[in-house]
Amino acid sequence: MPITRREAIAGLALAAQAATLNVRSFAQGNAPLQVNAERLQLSLEQLSVFGRPQGGTFADGVSRVAYSDADVAGRMYAMDLMRRAGLEPTIDAAGNIWATRTGTEPSLKPILFGSHIDSVPSGGNFDGDLGSLAAIEVMHTLLEHQVSTRHPLKAVIWQNEEGGLVGSHAAHGDALDMERQFYGIRLSDGMKKIGGNAAAIGSARLAPGAFRCYLELHIEQGGTLDKANVPIGIVEGIVAILEYDVEIRGFANHAGTTPMPERRNALLAAARLIETVQDVVTSEPGRQVGTVGSLTVSPNARNVVPGLVKHSLELRDLSLEKITRLAETIQTRAQDIARATGTEIAITLVETDPPAIATAEIQTAIEQSAADLGLKTMRLPSGAGHDAQMMAKLGPMGMIFVPSIGGISHSPRELSRWTDCANGANVLLQTIVRMDRS
Amino acid sequence: MPITRREAIAGLALAAQAATLNVRSFAQGNAPLQVNAERLQLSLEQLSVFGRPQGGTFADGVSRVAYSDADVAGRMYAMDLMRRAGLEPTIDAAGNIWATRTGTEPSLKPILFGSHIDSVPSGGNFDGDLGSLAAIEVMHTLLEHQVSTRHPLKAVIWQNEEGGLVGSHAAHGDALDMERQFYGIRLSDGMKKIGGNAAAIGSARLAPGAFRCYLELHIEQGGTLDKANVPIGIVEGIVAILEYDVEIRGFANHAGTTPMPERRNALLAAARLIETVQDVVTSEPGRQVGTVGSLTVSPNARNVVPGLVKHSLELRDLSLEKITRLAETIQTRAQDIARATGTEIAITLVETDPPAIATAEIQTAIEQSAADLGLKTMRLPSGAGHDAQMMAKLGPMGMIFVPSIGGISHSPRELSRWTDCANGANVLLQTIVRMDRS
Repeated sequence: MPITRREAIAGLALAAQAATLNVRSFAQGNAPLQVNAERLQLSLEQLSVFGRPQGGTFADGVSRVAYSDADVAGRMYAMDLMRRAGLEPTIDAAGNIWATRTGTEPSLKPILFGSHIDSVPSGGNFDGDLGSLAAIEVMHTLLEHQVSTRHPLKAVIWQNEEGGLVGSHAAHGDALDMERQFYGIRLSDGMKKIGGNAAAIGSARLAPGAFRCYLELHIEQGGTLDKANVPIGIVEGIVAILEYDVEIRGFANHAGTTPMPERRNALLAAARLIETVQDVVTSEPGRQVGTVGSLTVSPNARNVVPGLVKHSLELRDLSLEKITRLAETIQTRAQDIARATGTEIAITLVETDPPAIATAEIQTAIEQSAADLGLKTMRLPSGAGHDAQMMAKLGPMGMIFVPSIGGISHSPRELSRWTDCANGANVLLQTIVRMDRS
Repeated sequence: MPITRREAIAGLALAAQAATLNVRSFAQGNAPLQVNAERLQLSLEQLSVFGRPQGGTFADGVSRVAYSDADVAGRMYAMDLMRRAGLEPTIDAAGNIWATRTGTEPSLKPILFGSHIDSVPSGGNFDGDLGSLAAIEVMHTLLEHQVSTRHPLKAVIWQNEEGGLVGSHAAHGDALDMERQFYGIRLSDGMKKIGGNAAAIGSARLAPGAFRCYLELHIEQGGTLDKANVPIGIVEGIVAILEYDVEIRGFANHAGTTPMPERRNALLAAARLIETVQDVVTSEPGRQVGTVGSLTVSPNARNVVPGLVKHSLELRDLSLEKITRLAETIQTRAQDIARATGTEIAITLVETDPPAIATAEIQTAIEQSAADLGLKTMRLPSGAGHDAQMMAKLGPMGMIFVPSIGGISHSPRELSRWTDCANGANVLLQTIVRMDRS
C-alpha cells in the first residue's frame, strides 16, 4: 500500500501533533491516555547497558544472549521496572517473566502483551526490548493515571526468543530438547540460571483459549515502513517458512586439464539454481522472499572444478500454498539445470513452519487506535518469526510494527526513532484499552 | 584435431602391431629399440607400495606427499632402480635426484629427461611416476642393448612437484621461501630430510643453455586423448595461467524481513559472475578454460542474505593474450552485475604464469618417433603445470602425453593403460635417440 511523499510528510506532521496534543480519548472521553515517552526511552537506554560491548555506547548495540550473565542482569532490571509499575513479577518454570494487573471483572480472560529482551550476538537495542519495555510502560501509565481495565492484564517477557522462541514454545506446551547446547550452556541449565525449573516445565503451559488476546509491539526489522514513511505497521500475520537443503553432485577434476565441455561443475549448477530462485520468487507480485543464505563448495580449491556444493534454500510468505507452488517450479527447473550441467541436484524439505495469521478483529483495533492517535498505518506481513506466532495457536493475536531505519536488524546498527517507539507504545496502550472494552 | 572412430580403431591396431613387430629402427637400422614394458609396469607397481593406503591395492592410489616418510622410501626405491640401470644416483642441494650416463662426445651438452614421484594426498600411481620410471627404464634399455649416445644423458626426479615445482624452480635459480610450511614441515627441513641442503641451494642451479634439451613423459590428466582414442599427445606448450581473487560486497540482512528489491545479495552477484565466466570462456573457439573453484560466503547463515562472497577465478590458455582479453570482458561484465545487484565487485590479479611453449624441433621429433612406431599423435596444450615449464626457460623443451582414462587425475581413480605407458616410454626413448643424432 504505497503512499505519496506528500501524504507521508502530512502523516508525520499529524503524528507529531498527536504526540503532544492528546487529541481524543477513548477511556476517559477526553485526551487519550498516553505513555511517558521519556521514561520509555530512558528504560531502553538503561537496559542497553547489560551486554554492551566494553567501552561502547548505546550505538554500539548489545550482546545479551539468553542465559548469559548479561541476560540475567537485564532480566533483573526489567523486573525492577515492573515493581516500579506497581506489579510483582513472577517467573514461570520455563523462565518467562510475568507481571499481572488485576481487572475489575476477575472472571474475564486476561489480555497478554509483551516481547523478549534476549538478543543475538552483536545485536541491536530495539529488537524485543521495545515491546518488552513498552509493555511495562503501559502498566506504569495505567497505574499513574489510576485507570482500571475490566480484563486482567499480563505483561510478559519471553525467555530466549532468538534461540528459537523457547519460552513461548514452552507456553504452548511443546516438548523442548533440554540437552541442547545454546552458546555453551544446556537448555535445562540455562532455565535454572534465569529462575526456571526444567523439571516442572509443564506448569508454564497456557491452555488454548486462556486469554482474551495476545498483543506484541516490535520493530519491523525490514525497511518497508521506513521507506514508505509510515509510522505504524499492522501485522497481517507471521509468514510461513519452507526450509530446504540442496545438494549438487558433479565431479571434481583438474581445472587445468578438464576441457569446458567435459566438466560436471557443481558450482556452475548452483549458480544457475541461485539465479532461478531469484527469478521464480520475483516472477509474480507479492511480498514472498526466497534466500540461498549458506553455501559450501568441495573440494574448494582454486585449481579444482567443484565436485560438490551444498546450500540452503528458504522461502517465506503469508501463503504456504504460494511458496509450496514456487518451490515446485524451482524443483522442476533444478532438474533442467542438472541435465544441462551433468550434475545431480537433490532438494530436500527439512522444515515447514505454517503461517500465523493475525486476528482480523485485532488488526482493526490497531488500525482504529492508530487513526485516533493521528497515525498513518500500513498492513504488512512479518517476515521474521516472533513469540506471537506461538500465542496465535492458543488465542487471538495481533502485532504492531514501528519502522526500522534502513531496515537494518540483528546488527548494532539497528535503529528506530524515539518518536516511533513512543507512537508504537501508545498504539499498544490504546489497542489494549480498545480490546478491554469489547 | 578430431579423428574419426574408424581412424582411431585403425590407429590402435597399428599401435598394437608396432609394440610387437618393431617395424623399423633409427639407431641400428633394423628393429627400433624398445623398452621392457613388463619391467616398467613392475616398477610402477612396486613404487605404488610407498604411500599406499593401509590395506589397499594399486587401485587405491597413493599419498606420497613430498618430504613424507613415503616420499623418502619411494626415492630410495627409485635410486635403487637407477643402480640396477648401471647408474649411480646423486642428490643435488635442492633434493633433486640425478643419474648421468656418459656420452661418446663428452663436450656435447647433456639430454635431460625425467619427472617427479611425489603425489598429492590421495593421488594416483601415474602422475609423475610414469615419466620418472620411464626415464630410468630408458637408461636400463640402453644399458642392456649396449647402445651408446653422443650426448651425455641425465635422468632426473624433481622433488616436490605437487607443492609448486619446488625442485625445478631451484634448478632455474628461483628464490624459494625456505620457512614455508608444506603439510607440517618447513621447506628447508623437508629438503634436509630427502638429502638436500637448503643452505647450498644455489649449487642446484642449471645455467641457461646448459642442456641439449629437456624431455618429459607424463599422463595427460585430461580426457582429450582418451576421448579421441589417440595414444600419443605432442604437447604444444604448458598453458599460461591468470589467477584472480574476487571479492563481492553486498549487505547482510534478515532473510525474512528484507524484500527482494531491497536486497544487496553478494551471492546472487557471485552466481551471475560464475555464469558470466562460463559464457565468456566458451564464447569463442579454442581450448581455454576458466574456473571458479573456491568460494566462501559470509555470514553463511540460512536466514541471512549473504553480505560478502570471496571466490577464486583462474583462466588458462597457451595464449596469454587471449585470456588477458577474456579477463577484461569478465571485468566489464562484473561491473554491470555489481550495478544490477547493488554490490561492489573487486577482481584482483594475484598471479600471472606465462606460457611455456614446447620447442618446435622437439614437437617434430616426437611426432616422427611416434609415426615410426606406428602410433597416432595429436597436438594439444598441457592445462596442468609441469617441471618442464621451468626447464623451458633454460633450453629446448618437449613433452609427451599418454591418455588418462576418463581424464581423471589427482585421484586414486587416475588410470592409464599399460600399453599406453609402454608406448609413451618407447616414444621417449626414440625421441632421445633422434635428438641425440641431430
